Amino acid sequence: MAVDAFASVLRELEDGLGSARVLADDFARQAYASDDTPKSCPPQAVVFPRSHAEVRAIMEIALRHRLPLVARGAGSGNVGGALPVAGSVVVSFECMTRILDFDPANRTITVESGVVTGDIDRLARSQGLFYPPDPGSAPYCRIGGNLAMNAAGPKAVKYGVTRDYVLGLRAVTGTGAEIHTGCRTSKGVVGYDLTRLLVGSEGTLALITEATLRLLPAPAAKATLRVCYDGSVPACAAVARVMRQPVIPSALEFMDHHAIAAIRAAGAASDLPAGTQALLMVEADGDPADVARQTAALKAALQGPGLLELQEAQDPAAVAALWSARKSLSGAIKRIAPLKINEDVVVPVSRLAELVAHVDRLARDWRISIVAFGHAGNGNLHVNLMVHPDDADEMARAREALHRLFAEVLRLGGTLSGEHGIGTEKRNYLPLELDPPTLAVMRAIKAQFDPFDLLNPGKTLPDSDQ
Amino acid sequence: MAVDAFASVLRELEDGLGSARVLADDFARQAYASDDTPKSCPPQAVVFPRSHAEVRAIMEIALRHRLPLVARGAGSGNVGGALPVAGSVVVSFECMTRILDFDPANRTITVESGVVTGDIDRLARSQGLFYPPDPGSAPYCRIGGNLAMNAAGPKAVKYGVTRDYVLGLRAVTGTGAEIHTGCRTSKGVVGYDLTRLLVGSEGTLALITEATLRLLPAPAAKATLRVCYDGSVPACAAVARVMRQPVIPSALEFMDHHAIAAIRAAGAASDLPAGTQALLMVEADGDPADVARQTAALKAALQGPGLLELQEAQDPAAVAALWSARKSLSGAIKRIAPLKINEDVVVPVSRLAELVAHVDRLARDWRISIVAFGHAGNGNLHVNLMVHPDDADEMARAREALHRLFAEVLRLGGTLSGEHGIGTEKRNYLPLELDPPTLAVMRAIKAQFDPFDLLNPGKTLPDSDQ
Repeated sequence: MAVDAFASVLRELEDGLGSARVLADDFARQAYASDDTPKSCPPQAVVFPRSHAEVRAIMEIALRHRLPLVARGAGSGNVGGALPVAGSVVVSFECMTRILDFDPANRTITVESGVVTGDIDRLARSQGLFYPPDPGSAPYCRIGGNLAMNAAGPKAVKYGVTRDYVLGLRAVTGTGAEIHTGCRTSKGVVGYDLTRLLVGSEGTLALITEATLRLLPAPAAKATLRVCYDGSVPACAAVARVMRQPVIPSALEFMDHHAIAAIRAAGAASDLPAGTQALLMVEADGDPADVARQTAALKAALQGPGLLELQEAQDPAAVAALWSARKSLSGAIKRIAPLKINEDVVVPVSRLAELVAHVDRLARDWRISIVAFGHAGNGNLHVNLMVHPDDADEMARAREALHRLFAEVLRLGGTLSGEHGIGTEKRNYLPLELDPPTLAVMRAIKAQFDPFDLLNPGKTLPDSDQ
Repeated sequence: MAVDAFASVLRELEDGLGSARVLADDFARQAYASDDTPKSCPPQAVVFPRSHAEVRAIMEIALRHRLPLVARGAGSGNVGGALPVAGSVVVSFECMTRILDFDPANRTITVESGVVTGDIDRLARSQGLFYPPDPGSAPYCRIGGNLAMNAAGPKAVKYGVTRDYVLGLRAVTGTGAEIHTGCRTSKGVVGYDLTRLLVGSEGTLALITEATLRLLPAPAAKATLRVCYDGSVPACAAVARVMRQPVIPSALEFMDHHAIAAIRAAGAASDLPAGTQALLMVEADGDPADVARQTAALKAALQGPGLLELQEAQDPAAVAALWSARKSLSGAIKRIAPLKINEDVVVPVSRLAELVAHVDRLARDWRISIVAFGHAGNGNLHVNLMVHPDDADEMARAREALHRLFAEVLRLGGTLSGEHGIGTEKRNYLPLELDPPTLAVMRAIKAQFDPFDLLNPGKTLPDSDQ
């Protein structure tokens, strides 16, 4: 949009929101130019609505001027979901942080989209409840971003993902229509399930302004196991054994030998036994007496060839000590190479060992440092290709390795993303997984909700010539 | 369609399926003229595809001839979801009963849509697993019908509904497109959630041919409590107390005093204490030791004013004896009046007592026999108006009572249907709950998936002048 034309857009936005919540200076545009993807594109402006009504007003202005809007929570996503597009205005939900209703008796909470996910959990726990989805970014990410991406985390293996905790939404579609989806009760089948159509749609169908979430009773106790194996194959076999017996762990996390080498190099794994080539972090939660029973069952399943050490903790300090190796990983792998290409593929749990072996072969054959870890109980492996973006040859090899990784994931009956989503980073891989008629249905839904392609254009779905 | 024109349609159907699986005689047309609604409309024919490919062929014939299709599982629904419409062909999935894949290691099963729901559960249990959704019709209903209606049952209070157990679908839309939705793993966020858009869409968007379902470890033990109260208010207060403490029961069923009077009249409640005016059936499941702990917590929550008797059972015969009063209810209420208008409204659990009191007032003010029972842990009350269809005055009073019931449910923050769905019977009440923009979005989705209005026309959404 030409500068003059945009000046009039800015005036309309300022009329609607007040000038303090419409920023178009270079500093603001740079501050909101990226999410957690290594890309950058300054928007034309950033706006901070304070209410559903202001979001509607923004959408109306966008419709009048054919202005692309990019919804943003905390900008902590890593597939470009909140990356601005050229000429866009970022709609930050940071000022929509009201708790509209907290109803412990009915185990629901209704919040505006900008509420920090961890704050929802904290409030729930003050009444003996909790909000199960626990992405790593929970201390700062916003529930609107979680809804857009259908966020998950370690607890998903037992408790499911964001989608499973949303009862109803209030939202503004790309035509400016205000819709109310779902219900506020624990059951309801009135009309089509628009709630779950919006969850995971990455801000491309509607701007979600409010959500009613379901809460669960908080488990009274937790136990943590750290289990070391002499290789990934025995560790993955243990994962398969755990997921075949009846006790579902509340976390079942895996780290491969590259990950362990990285944390050793960072000096953070000094208490791991020599020869550790794979690590599992396993948790059980529930009533204290039952946690003891669950832990015994999990330990029995974790026993097997290649087990080097099993440590257990229940008090918070000891639990934190066991997690320290895993928690140090994010920092440690940054030392390997400046750029992390982070994939979060999923395979059936019984095929996880094959996937891990394939990743090892890819690392060797294509001479790429790959660190693999993730939510093993869901078969959800985070495959991190550590590369130097200025090394064109390495980048080309990384692309080849990625293609082969995706092909293998699909061959094993898996899916290309378990929780990170598609955004800009994976959208052109979608035709590997989704056939043309299914993609055509998704495109038609996009066209229906957002006929002028104003909501997060260029995200989620592949280019139409794909 | 004129008889001659339909003769050529029949020939095409017979060419596609073989004449043995295309029935157009009067007997077949009458046999498939109804579901469990007191209405009847003979279809032009009934077809029995044996495979996904045959369903595609049927859809193509329907598109060529603009032939309405009504998908049908067992025809056990009670809102007209499977009721034929004038000029339609019923697509019965009774011959699509293959188990395509059963994968205990990954806790998934892939089935054709005609598999009986109870058979899925039985197969799962043979490997220590189970399929949680348990509609009362599970011994004979078909999974395709459950998917269409998003079926639930008593276990939903702990385990959720059909929607929560569907990973992916294969389906044919109203344009003849074959789509594959979702994934076959326990996590996945690739593209829009078409899976849950189809679940609960009552056969109006696509013909679901195959589904991949998630299974859970089967609980090893179960305990059953039958708890008698001297009135509905104390019973509902007990329900609210149960749902505020941390142990979630695996069933929490309620019967009001009209229900108890009906089973007493049928001679089936001889062991209930005198003065019983409300009954709760409560179950806990899990590991044997933990079930004892859960039961103790539930009993503590069930204690309170108005409690007359609490009986407990664990062995199957004793459990069955406790359930016998509840199980006799369906037969017993048929003696009250020939027609049951069966609503399954939902309110927040904390408002259930208010709803039950309102139902009592409606029964008195409008002189209608109303029997209320249901899945109290979800706030899901089955309100059965027992009427004589030939008594025009009574029917008019029943309609008035229904309107007031729905208004009260919405005032209490509830929803018009928890599990039965909309079908023909409730669709014109939808505008009470859904605002025009939200309905418009649903209508647009219907038009996109089924532009010629061939899939179960006249169901789910209200007439467009509403």
